[in-house]
Amino acid sequence: MSSNPHCKVVLGGTLAKKLLGEVQEGVKKLQRAPLLVGFLSSSDPAARVYAEWTGRTCKENGFGYELQEVDREELEGALINANNDDRVDGIIVYYPIFGNRQDQYLQQIVDAKKDVEGLSHQYIFNMYQNKRFLDEAQEQKSVLPCTPLAVCKILEQLLIYNTILPYGNRLHGRTITVINRSEVVGRPLAALLANDGARVFSVDIEDVQEFTRGAGLRKRRHEVIEKPDWTLETCLPLSDVVISGVPGEKFKVPIELVREGAVCINFSSEKNFDPSVKEKASIYIPAIGKVTIVVLLRNLLRIVQNRIESSKRATEIKEIAADASPEQMARITEQLKRTTQATS
Amino acid sequence: MSSNPHCKVVLGGTLAKKLLGEVQEGVKKLQRAPLLVGFLSSSDPAARVYAEWTGRTCKENGFGYELQEVDREELEGALINANNDDRVDGIIVYYPIFGNRQDQYLQQIVDAKKDVEGLSHQYIFNMYQNKRFLDEAQEQKSVLPCTPLAVCKILEQLLIYNTILPYGNRLHGRTITVINRSEVVGRPLAALLANDGARVFSVDIEDVQEFTRGAGLRKRRHEVIEKPDWTLETCLPLSDVVISGVPGEKFKVPIELVREGAVCINFSSEKNFDPSVKEKASIYIPAIGKVTIVVLLRNLLRIVQNRIESSKRATEIKEIAADASPEQMARITEQLKRTTQATS
Repeated sequence: MSSNPHCKVVLGGTLAKKLLGEVQEGVKKLQRAPLLVGFLSSSDPAARVYAEWTGRTCKENGFGYELQEVDREELEGALINANNDDRVDGIIVYYPIFGNRQDQYLQQIVDAKKDVEGLSHQYIFNMYQNKRFLDEAQEQKSVLPCTPLAVCKILEQLLIYNTILPYGNRLHGRTITVINRSEVVGRPLAALLANDGARVFSVDIEDVQEFTRGAGLRKRRHEVIEKPDWTLETCLPLSDVVISGVPGEKFKVPIELVREGAVCINFSSEKNFDPSVKEKASIYIPAIGKVTIVVLLRNLLRIVQNRIESSKRATEIKEIAADASPEQMARITEQLKRTTQATS
Repeated sequence: MSSNPHCKVVLGGTLAKKLLGEVQEGVKKLQRAPLLVGFLSSSDPAARVYAEWTGRTCKENGFGYELQEVDREELEGALINANNDDRVDGIIVYYPIFGNRQDQYLQQIVDAKKDVEGLSHQYIFNMYQNKRFLDEAQEQKSVLPCTPLAVCKILEQLLIYNTILPYGNRLHGRTITVINRSEVVGRPLAALLANDGARVFSVDIEDVQEFTRGAGLRKRRHEVIEKPDWTLETCLPLSDVVISGVPGEKFKVPIELVREGAVCINFSSEKNFDPSVKEKASIYIPAIGKVTIVVLLRNLLRIVQNRIESSKRATEIKEIAADASPEQMARITEQLKRTTQATS
């Protein structure tokens, strides 16, 4: 009998590396380095650290990066200028700024076509509705918010997504507890995982909710069911995967309730899992920040690719329209429909 | 809402194909077609069908095959002749013959070095002990019984084995129910799965036993714990994978107890799962016979490869010994030790 338990601890940097390879491949195929512009209007030191970190990661990986430090009262105008500036491919704003609902207003100022964080209403709506593409031809994927998407990409790398199953259903049969139900990460993450087929227990201080697509995944998107009287004591022993993102030093996942061999992921900046998690987990991910940044670059790349694709279609339409028969006009209408849906 | 549930039904033939590719690759690298000899001493029509089926599969895939029909009283002598016949690479006996303990005696007559079914005591002992190699250098793998190994190979293809985890622990975190605890399939299968890291409930008419390597997989091999008062009602709702091999038409797995999204595998020649299994399972495998035959050929290939490897070592030893210094004699002793362990 060995004294150490078998638990594979995987660091964020290791997980980020593979994803980064794909992003670098994509960037090489473009004509020029995509430009990301960051807006810092906050005195929060964490925001500044994050800004520096994105800048460094961009430059190391073939992306352009500019940081604009703007007084928060000037931010709205600066964002509108960046929306209209053809040099700018992607925009990231370092929140919190006002720390209230005005921040949500500012999020919607950023043009969806430049929104690398995936916070535009159109993207968030698509995510909750399990609508994965922007266009009818299903060629342009919708953009997903970085941190929840980072968790999904990690679960893909850990082979929790089963590629034997069809795309969109690859978490069928998995039971996952997500601790924290914030609008920024917890709730979108629970929805994404349930839309991909998992049975998800979303746990917050107040209550437990179950997110699921129902028996045989018959529903097209998740539904939410209240679980009165459920607590972590009910959820954790049932869960293959436990994902925790509770801010604050005090909260610790009760390891004694975690199922033997579970996969445990921490997305809080605090340590939600005590080191004894290794006594129980088969895989433990202590932090995901490095993956989140790579996902941001991946979103930027996707946005640029979507734009190139749209402009190709527009050129095609103009060429056909120049001397069109009735048959060709039908094709033009078709193309216009696809282009409009993808870029509106 | 769609009316059909999402369940992927995978046929044995599809699963066999990939495994067959690997076997064909291996055969190409040999100097000659390995010869399998089958012994039929039974009037059981199922045994004859199986014999014909192995013959056909051998011939279609570059293996030689000879069928010897022998009176059951002559079988022991015929097996000894085949053991001593250098032309013969592998031996398969179609059971049942006497249908009692004499069949187990006959199983041990077959030379382990030609035992493609993995029924020799040495192999079975290694399997239960979680001893995976025949030699200290860990170059020659032990042979595993065909049907339990076929189930493992299927679980590998279905990505239930997580390749992120180290070899030997890849079922860590999986809960599996195996229904049937026969010495031929059910018990060895439960042991194999638990040795690979799963928590296994082995269910028989009499009782339920849990096979597990304990918390953090600290134990080197599985241990068996009686679960008094446990039944399928306790096991099935906890299980990611349900594997059933109950002979007889009457038995059906109670689908209402199966967990949403479970993986269901039938290894009985009867249909242990009602068609409604598709309402619950994410993946359903109705039969595994075709995979079992390919595993038999894989075992034959392994045995031939092991023999070639051993004879290479023997040649090496002779060359070194011809004109040996004290230092070289140390190497010879080392080589001899490895060779003896691999072939004894």
